[in-house]
Amino acid sequence: MPSKVKILDTTLRDGAQGEGIIYSLDDKVRITEKLDEIGIHYIEAGWPGSNPKDAMFFEKMAKRRFKNSRIVAFGSTRRAQIKAAKDKNLNDILKSKVAIATIFGKSWLFHVKEVLRTTPEENLDMIFDSLQFLIKNGLDVFYDAEHFFDGYKDNPEYALKTLISAENAGAKYLVLCDTNGGTLPGEINKIIAEIKPKLKVELGIHCHNDSGLAVANTLLAVESGAAMVQGTINGYGERCGNTDLIPAIADLKLKMGIDCISDSNLQKLNEVSHFVSEISNMRHMTNQPYTGDSAFAHKAGVHINAVMKNPQSYEHVNPELVGNSRRTLVSELGGKSGIILLAKEFKLDLTKDDPQTKKLHDLLQSLEMKGYHFEAAEASFELLLKKHLGKVKEFFKLENLRVVVNKDTEKKASTEAIIKLRVKGKIEHTAAEGDGPVNALDNALRKALLQYYPVLSHMHLTDFKVRVLGEKEGTAAQVRVMIQSQDETGSWNTMGVSENIIEASWQALSDSVEYKLLKDKIS
Amino acid sequence: MPSKVKILDTTLRDGAQGEGIIYSLDDKVRITEKLDEIGIHYIEAGWPGSNPKDAMFFEKMAKRRFKNSRIVAFGSTRRAQIKAAKDKNLNDILKSKVAIATIFGKSWLFHVKEVLRTTPEENLDMIFDSLQFLIKNGLDVFYDAEHFFDGYKDNPEYALKTLISAENAGAKYLVLCDTNGGTLPGEINKIIAEIKPKLKVELGIHCHNDSGLAVANTLLAVESGAAMVQGTINGYGERCGNTDLIPAIADLKLKMGIDCISDSNLQKLNEVSHFVSEISNMRHMTNQPYTGDSAFAHKAGVHINAVMKNPQSYEHVNPELVGNSRRTLVSELGGKSGIILLAKEFKLDLTKDDPQTKKLHDLLQSLEMKGYHFEAAEASFELLLKKHLGKVKEFFKLENLRVVVNKDTEKKASTEAIIKLRVKGKIEHTAAEGDGPVNALDNALRKALLQYYPVLSHMHLTDFKVRVLGEKEGTAAQVRVMIQSQDETGSWNTMGVSENIIEASWQALSDSVEYKLLKDKIS
Repeated sequence: MPSKVKILDTTLRDGAQGEGIIYSLDDKVRITEKLDEIGIHYIEAGWPGSNPKDAMFFEKMAKRRFKNSRIVAFGSTRRAQIKAAKDKNLNDILKSKVAIATIFGKSWLFHVKEVLRTTPEENLDMIFDSLQFLIKNGLDVFYDAEHFFDGYKDNPEYALKTLISAENAGAKYLVLCDTNGGTLPGEINKIIAEIKPKLKVELGIHCHNDSGLAVANTLLAVESGAAMVQGTINGYGERCGNTDLIPAIADLKLKMGIDCISDSNLQKLNEVSHFVSEISNMRHMTNQPYTGDSAFAHKAGVHINAVMKNPQSYEHVNPELVGNSRRTLVSELGGKSGIILLAKEFKLDLTKDDPQTKKLHDLLQSLEMKGYHFEAAEASFELLLKKHLGKVKEFFKLENLRVVVNKDTEKKASTEAIIKLRVKGKIEHTAAEGDGPVNALDNALRKALLQYYPVLSHMHLTDFKVRVLGEKEGTAAQVRVMIQSQDETGSWNTMGVSENIIEASWQALSDSVEYKLLKDKIS
Repeated sequence: MPSKVKILDTTLRDGAQGEGIIYSLDDKVRITEKLDEIGIHYIEAGWPGSNPKDAMFFEKMAKRRFKNSRIVAFGSTRRAQIKAAKDKNLNDILKSKVAIATIFGKSWLFHVKEVLRTTPEENLDMIFDSLQFLIKNGLDVFYDAEHFFDGYKDNPEYALKTLISAENAGAKYLVLCDTNGGTLPGEINKIIAEIKPKLKVELGIHCHNDSGLAVANTLLAVESGAAMVQGTINGYGERCGNTDLIPAIADLKLKMGIDCISDSNLQKLNEVSHFVSEISNMRHMTNQPYTGDSAFAHKAGVHINAVMKNPQSYEHVNPELVGNSRRTLVSELGGKSGIILLAKEFKLDLTKDDPQTKKLHDLLQSLEMKGYHFEAAEASFELLLKKHLGKVKEFFKLENLRVVVNKDTEKKASTEAIIKLRVKGKIEHTAAEGDGPVNALDNALRKALLQYYPVLSHMHLTDFKVRVLGEKEGTAAQVRVMIQSQDETGSWNTMGVSENIIEASWQALSDSVEYKLLKDKIS
C-alpha cells in the first residue's frame, strides 16, 4: 500500500456526462478554483476537441497559475490508420496549451473489434503513437485504460499488452478503469496483484458505480498499490456516476492513514460537496457519506441517548474532521454556542444565559425549519441578528407591492411592478417594468429609494438563485431565493423563503439593499 | 462462499429511522405485500415495544399468511439486573405473536460500559437470557451483534464471547453488524475468516453506509461465508442509510451467481425500488445502481455510438434483467444519432439523411444554447418532435394570461391568475388564486380545461424546479423551469425557458397538460 496518493478530479469532464448536468464556462472556472483551494492535485477539466466551450475554458486557463492544482485535458487515442500528428483530437490538445493530458485507449478486444473495428495490433500502435506524439511535444500523459478489468477478464495477455504500449511510450500513470462499473471488489485486488509486478509505471484507479461498489473498489485498488485515485465530487458522472471523491478522500485519510489532501483541507470537504452540488444544480444527497445533512443526524431515541453520553457510540468519525456537524433531529440547529460565536464576528456580545440568546436560538430554529439556510446568506443572518437586538434603523418600510405579468398568445410576456414604500417619513409610490417579475421589482425598489440613498447606485445584483424546497406539494411548495449583490468593496448574499416566489424575492432584495445601507453606515 | 443466501429486509424498521421517513400503518402493510411479492425471505417490520403503530401492525399481520415472506419483530436484549420474563420489551415481542424475532445485543465493551453502564458478564447473561426466553416460548431468534466489527477490533475475545452466548442460547443466525458504518472492506473478510471456524451457527451481515462501503462490505461478507444479508430497499436508514438491497441483490444474483430471489422476481426490482420510494415520499435517486432512471442512460456521443453497435460496450448488465431500460439522452454531447434513437422510442422513423433530422438537430442545438435542457424533460422533447412532424393536434390555445401578486406591509402575499384560452372552438376565460404565481396559474389552467378534458383530474404535479441560467445578469437572467407530473401509470417531465419565470412556468405547465392528453390519446 502506498503512503500517499494523488487525486485526479474529473467532475468537469466525466461528471459533466452525468444526466442533468451542464456547466457553463463560468461554472467550470468556479469549480476549478474551489478544487484548487482544497489541494486537489489534478483537475481533468474537459475535452478540448469535443466542443467550443471546453476549448474556451482551456484558452482561459492557459494564462492562469493555481496554488495547488494542475489542469489536465482529456482525449482519446488517434483514429485508426492515420498518423498521430494528423489527428484532430490530439492536435486540439496541443492547441489547448495544457502541460498534462489524459489519453484513453482500449484494453478490451471486444471494443477493439466491435467499436473501433480495427485490429488488435493497430490498437496497440494507436496507444503508443498517441502518447509518444504528445510526450514529444512536451506534455506529461496519464493513460486511462478504458474497460481494463473487463478486458483483462476476457483476455489478460492482450489487456496487459495495451498497458505496456502506454508504458513504453512514456505514460506517467497507467490508470485502470472499470468503465462499465461491473467489477466486484474481490476481482480488483486479484487483478492488480497479478499485473503490478509486470509494470514499472505507477498505477491509478478510475471506477464507476453501476454495481454500487465504486468507493470500495477504489480503496481496494489503493490497498493493492494504486497511487492515483480518479473520481468526481459527489460521484457525478455518466449513468450511476463515478467514484465519489468525498467518501473516497475521507476514507483514505481517516481510515487508511493515506496522505492525499491536508487535514485542514479535509475540513473543507463539506463545503466543497455542497458548493459543487449547488453549481451543478443537483440536489445535495442528504444521506451522502460524510457530507450529507443526515450523515451525522441521529433520529432513533436509543441513538440520541447514547450519542449524548458519548458521540463515538454511533459516529464512525468526528463530523468536524470533514467540516460537517452533528444533528439530533429533535432540534435543528447547532445550539446556542453557535449563535454566540457568530454574534462575536459581528461585534455583538451575547452570553449563554442572556435571555436574548435563547430567543434568537428559538427564532433561528423555527426559520431553519421553514427552509431558511443562513450559512449561505451571511448578510441576511447579520441583519436578522442586529434587527433583533435593535441595532438597525428602519431605512424603509413596505406599504404595498404588486406585480403584474401579462402575456398575449405568442407574444413575449410583459411585467410591471408597483411598490409603495414609507421612506424617511414620506410615502414613495412608484412603478417599473422589467424582464420578469423579480427584475421589475428590483427596478421599482431602486427607483423608489435612489433619491434618498444615492449609494445604492454603486451596488448591483450579480447572482440570483431559486431553490424549490419540499417534494410533495408540486407548484405550491416553499421556494428559497438567494441573491448575491456586489459593490466596489465586496459582495454579500441574502435570502428569502416563501411559497410565493415573488414574496421570497422581495425579502432577499430588500435585505440586500438594507445590508448595503447598514454596511456603509448610511443614516 | 454459500450457494444461496437469505434476505432480511429491514426497510420498515431500520429504514424508518432514516431522516424524512415516517410510515403510516397502511404504508407498512403495502410495503410488506410488495416485498412478499418479490420473494424476500424475512421482513423485519418494527419494534413492538417501541410504539403503538408497530404494535398494531403486528396485531394485524398475525392473522395473515404470506406467499413467500415471514414477518420478524425487532427488539433489544433485556435490561440489566432483571429477569427476561419481567422485561417489557421481550414480553411485547411475545404479545406481537410473531414466529421470529431479531434481538440485538452489545458486542463492544465501550458500549457495555458507557451506554449500558453494566459489567461485561452481565451483558453476556443479558444476551443468553433474552434469547433463551423467546426460544423457550417457541420463537426463532436471529441475533444482531450490534457494533460487532468495532467491538472485535477493540477486544476480539470479548466480542466473540457475545456471539457464543447467543449461539448457546439457540440463535438461528448470528448477524454481524457494522452499526456505525466505519469498517473497511479488507477488515470484513479478515474478521469473518477469523471467527467463522469458531462458530457453529450460520452468520449474517448488516452494514451501514457511513463510509460509502455498505454494498461492497455485504458482498465481501457473503464471499467469506455469510448466509443472510440484511438491508433496506434503496438503502434507507439512519444517517447515511443501510446496505441498499437493490444493488446488493442484483450483484449477488448476476455477478456472484448466488441464489436469493428468482430470475423473474429480479425483473421486478425496478418496480419495487420506485414503489418504495413513492410510499416513503423520498425522491428516487436517478443515479441509483440498476434501478435509477439514469442507470442505463447514455449521454456522451462516444458512448451512444458504441451502444448502438453493441449495448454491452457501455452496460455492465442487460437492463431488462432488473426491469429497467436503456435511454439515450439528448444533449450537446449526443449528436444526430441520439435524435434518431430517441425518435425510434416514440415510434417515429427518422434517418440520418432525412432533411427533417438535420432541421430537428439544428432546432435542438439552438434551443439548448438558449438554456433548454431536453434530456431532463423527455415529455417536452417528445411534444416538440411530434409537433415539428405535425403529429399533435392543438388541444388548446392561449389568448391571454395575467398574474397579479399583491402584498401589504407585513401580510402574506396573495396571488391571482387570470387566463383566456381557446378550447375546441370556444373561449374559456377564468381565474384562480394560488400559493404563489405558478400554483395560481396551474389552478387556473385546470379550471379552464377540466370540463373539456376530464382525464386531467387524474394527473398532478409532483415536482417543480427552477434554475437561473447565466449568472451575470442578476435578476434579468434566463430562467429554466422543470415540472414533473404524475398519473396512475407513470410520471413525465416538462420544461420552459424564459427570462420571465411566469412565462417559463406557463410553457412547462401547458406542455405537461398537452403531454397527458397526447399520451392518453384524447381527441
